[in-house]
Amino acid sequence: MGSVGAMGEEALIERLARGLGAVQPPVEVGVGDDCAVLRLGDRTLLFATDTMVEGTHFTTDPTNPLTDLVAVGWRLGASNLSDLAAMGGRPLAAVISTALPAEWPVTWVEQAYEGLRKVGDRHGLPICGGDVVRINGPAALTLAVLGEVDGEPVLRSGGRPGDLIAVTGDLGASRACLRGVHDGSESRVALLRRGLWPMPRLEWGQALRGSASAMMDLSDGLATDLPRLARASGVGVLVREADLPVSDALVTVCGSREAAQREALIGGEDYELLVTLPKGSPLPEVPLSVIGELTAAPSQMEFVGANGEHRPLSEAGGWSHFGSAS
Amino acid sequence: MGSVGAMGEEALIERLARGLGAVQPPVEVGVGDDCAVLRLGDRTLLFATDTMVEGTHFTTDPTNPLTDLVAVGWRLGASNLSDLAAMGGRPLAAVISTALPAEWPVTWVEQAYEGLRKVGDRHGLPICGGDVVRINGPAALTLAVLGEVDGEPVLRSGGRPGDLIAVTGDLGASRACLRGVHDGSESRVALLRRGLWPMPRLEWGQALRGSASAMMDLSDGLATDLPRLARASGVGVLVREADLPVSDALVTVCGSREAAQREALIGGEDYELLVTLPKGSPLPEVPLSVIGELTAAPSQMEFVGANGEHRPLSEAGGWSHFGSAS
Repeated sequence: MGSVGAMGEEALIERLARGLGAVQPPVEVGVGDDCAVLRLGDRTLLFATDTMVEGTHFTTDPTNPLTDLVAVGWRLGASNLSDLAAMGGRPLAAVISTALPAEWPVTWVEQAYEGLRKVGDRHGLPICGGDVVRINGPAALTLAVLGEVDGEPVLRSGGRPGDLIAVTGDLGASRACLRGVHDGSESRVALLRRGLWPMPRLEWGQALRGSASAMMDLSDGLATDLPRLARASGVGVLVREADLPVSDALVTVCGSREAAQREALIGGEDYELLVTLPKGSPLPEVPLSVIGELTAAPSQMEFVGANGEHRPLSEAGGWSHFGSAS
Repeated sequence: MGSVGAMGEEALIERLARGLGAVQPPVEVGVGDDCAVLRLGDRTLLFATDTMVEGTHFTTDPTNPLTDLVAVGWRLGASNLSDLAAMGGRPLAAVISTALPAEWPVTWVEQAYEGLRKVGDRHGLPICGGDVVRINGPAALTLAVLGEVDGEPVLRSGGRPGDLIAVTGDLGASRACLRGVHDGSESRVALLRRGLWPMPRLEWGQALRGSASAMMDLSDGLATDLPRLARASGVGVLVREADLPVSDALVTVCGSREAAQREALIGGEDYELLVTLPKGSPLPEVPLSVIGELTAAPSQMEFVGANGEHRPLSEAGGWSHFGSAS
């Protein structure tokens, strides 16, 4: 069967999820959405987890201008909070488990915890427990977050043909930032801030809960995440690259609006919300850009490029933890 | 301030816990007990997490007879379930986050997940979500578990001077097993089974909930864990080594009852329950051995050795993830 690396992330997760067996009470939604959903009496809980690994998700190299352990803790919290946002939920509490090499300076761990506390304080997420273990290798920080949703959670599977596809905020900044921003120009500093300190869209997720037919957060890039939502909903997608929202800073850094929108198509770690909305449904007061629509052909995973050509999203690139992503 | 390894586990956790700030609703008990406690309306939830790291907590060396990836998954689940048991709780659901090197065979991951599912099926713990990320180093598997307690949870802090100290089952087998069991004698096989496949004491923990003044699970060994409970309760301890429960198999392997009881004093990963009980309180039908009592002097952390001598528990040895444990 081969190695984890040869199989690739998507296939591995599917395989492992099958091994975990069928969903059973109190679990109502299991592996495959941004959070698991649990029903406890009249309450609906959300449960998710995320890991950040040294060398994979962050660097500790002191010569790298992206090195910022406080931002690492912030991003760990933000990525988990973003999973709650993607279901229309709000946070209750989190626990952290940290695998540390003996030679790590204590100040690094403290900085990471400080960042985690900062994002937790800002969004009402107390960190209530944890564990520290030793690893003879890169540090790995895992957060598990518990949340609650008032009413029905928004799943990935509720999209229907004809629904509009929209995203919150603007896209592409994190990828552009993380690919290396080494000078001090104002646009690059703005991207750097955005990439290192993403904001989980909790209020927007809650506001969208009544209108959205499906929702998820953008952690691996639109070209990778949108097909996931479409597969869960059993529909196809058609996205217009020219409608992707990008910041002025990204346009400046990329040199053109077209180049910026290509970044927006494949950029990961934006932690904006990807949402589908029945046509004519009331839009809440959230910064939303309509970028395409769901189609009836599940095999259609296309975008309309800058020159009007239709191309498969799989050719746009994107991020995968294992396998041959660009 | 120095490195994580120089500071040691206990001091590091205390330092990090302070950085996380004060407990706030819905959290009622934060870092420092087996689980965090959350109040949600009239329900009391438990939240805990635990990580197992390749090379630290398990081996994948095919020439080592202890290598068993299914047992790794089982132990990961069992250690988390044991944390619920230690509060008198029962499981609701868990999420797993796995950091994997690209070269790991897929079959290893599948075996670990199979073991996790086995212990989950046996004890009613559905695994409802997860995450897989890449690590350029040892594999790290983190489980976060959510549980519930019917009534008040049993904390570490409730012990009072004069209370009896008791443990469930028998102790020392896991350490003896994990130190290396390489022949096939019947006693060693029994220890091996016990060390690789610990049973979380959920039913016993629930049964003890009405009677116990304090409770925790034995993961790092009695000599390490009992002072933790005593510090949380603000009391001292006096333990009689000769009263420690040991299995016939451990006595056989160790060569004498005294040697076996020394293993029992320092052995980690037993996952039995350590419980304190007011004298005269009704004892539930649980295999319990009274091994000592709590004293009024918080500085007293002693055991009475095989020859009747009083010695500090700190001289008995034990397990620490960082620092100079034996």
